[in-house]
Amino acid sequence: MLPKNIQNLIDEFARLPGIGPKSAARLTFYLLSKPDFELERFGQSLQNLRSNIKLCSQCFNITDTDDCRICQDGNRTRRIIAVVEEPLDVIALEKSGGFRGIYHVLGGSIDPLNGIGPENLRVNELVERLKDSDVEEIILATNPDFEGEATAAYIKDKIVALPNEIRITRIARGLPMGGDLEYADEVTLKRSMEGRGEYL
Amino acid sequence: MLPKNIQNLIDEFARLPGIGPKSAARLTFYLLSKPDFELERFGQSLQNLRSNIKLCSQCFNITDTDDCRICQDGNRTRRIIAVVEEPLDVIALEKSGGFRGIYHVLGGSIDPLNGIGPENLRVNELVERLKDSDVEEIILATNPDFEGEATAAYIKDKIVALPNEIRITRIARGLPMGGDLEYADEVTLKRSMEGRGEYL
Repeated sequence: MLPKNIQNLIDEFARLPGIGPKSAARLTFYLLSKPDFELERFGQSLQNLRSNIKLCSQCFNITDTDDCRICQDGNRTRRIIAVVEEPLDVIALEKSGGFRGIYHVLGGSIDPLNGIGPENLRVNELVERLKDSDVEEIILATNPDFEGEATAAYIKDKIVALPNEIRITRIARGLPMGGDLEYADEVTLKRSMEGRGEYL
Repeated sequence: MLPKNIQNLIDEFARLPGIGPKSAARLTFYLLSKPDFELERFGQSLQNLRSNIKLCSQCFNITDTDDCRICQDGNRTRRIIAVVEEPLDVIALEKSGGFRGIYHVLGGSIDPLNGIGPENLRVNELVERLKDSDVEEIILATNPDFEGEATAAYIKDKIVALPNEIRITRIARGLPMGGDLEYADEVTLKRSMEGRGEYL
């Protein structure tokens, strides 16, 4: 019933995760009222998305330079590596401002139900990075869910088997700031008790 | 910190209503894993959005034919016109399947705070349509909010002033299906009592 060009864009938006057919229509009609140059620019951004994008040869974060900006940064220590699942996790940690080491991006987590094993992740690349390095600490910063925990456990075993002396840590799991004991799930509460620290 | 092409697309998504910076980043990284032809097609859809799109000369719905498909449809009665604010309202009513008349799309609602008066809507065009017509009923199907009610009241006065004998109706306002009296707001409850009908 709708003009074809409008229906086409609704279909494209509706293919995106978390956008249903009603939101897709709303976004499309919103754009319909925008000037041509904005539509042109949005379209170009989509078509150019992947040009010049590669993976950092050191940490496998996405980058448009040879090594990513973080690996290039001389003010960061190379002795601490945070292991994360995805490039978005790097952004999240960078925004928190609490980390001055470098990263290793696995490209996902061990997820047997979806056919993703350790061989599909950049675990071997991490092990290679650690050989003959002066890395002192590996922070396992995979997600605190089933797949992330399994990935952290797998990587821990790999690193322990290395001759290097490396401290292996895991990001704290507990109640989020602003959270409420009453509504927290049991596993989170258990973790937050186990992970308790000195009150200073 | 992000590659420029990726940041560009995040910025585009974040300009859309209801999409915050985090969702914008998630959508962009989702698309990053899609094949080139899909990005190309999405981009083309955006750039082609407005080509061939015009307003129906009769009802002002958007269309890519001279008169819209609804106005062309010989199986619909031309004696009942539903007056709506936007093309999306036409789609919503068509999906409900409860209406076999034709439409008039105003292009918005009277909204003095945003500087939109009746002269910015297609009210005069509606009055012109009604002159020398055999329209028997006008259904005022503007939104049941402040602006929509004001628009409905304004149009009613305009139609009453015409020499034609036209029945003017307003879509029912009351409790939505699946709703709950306990949680309904006072105005909705008041309307649903005022608009009560025989229980058959």
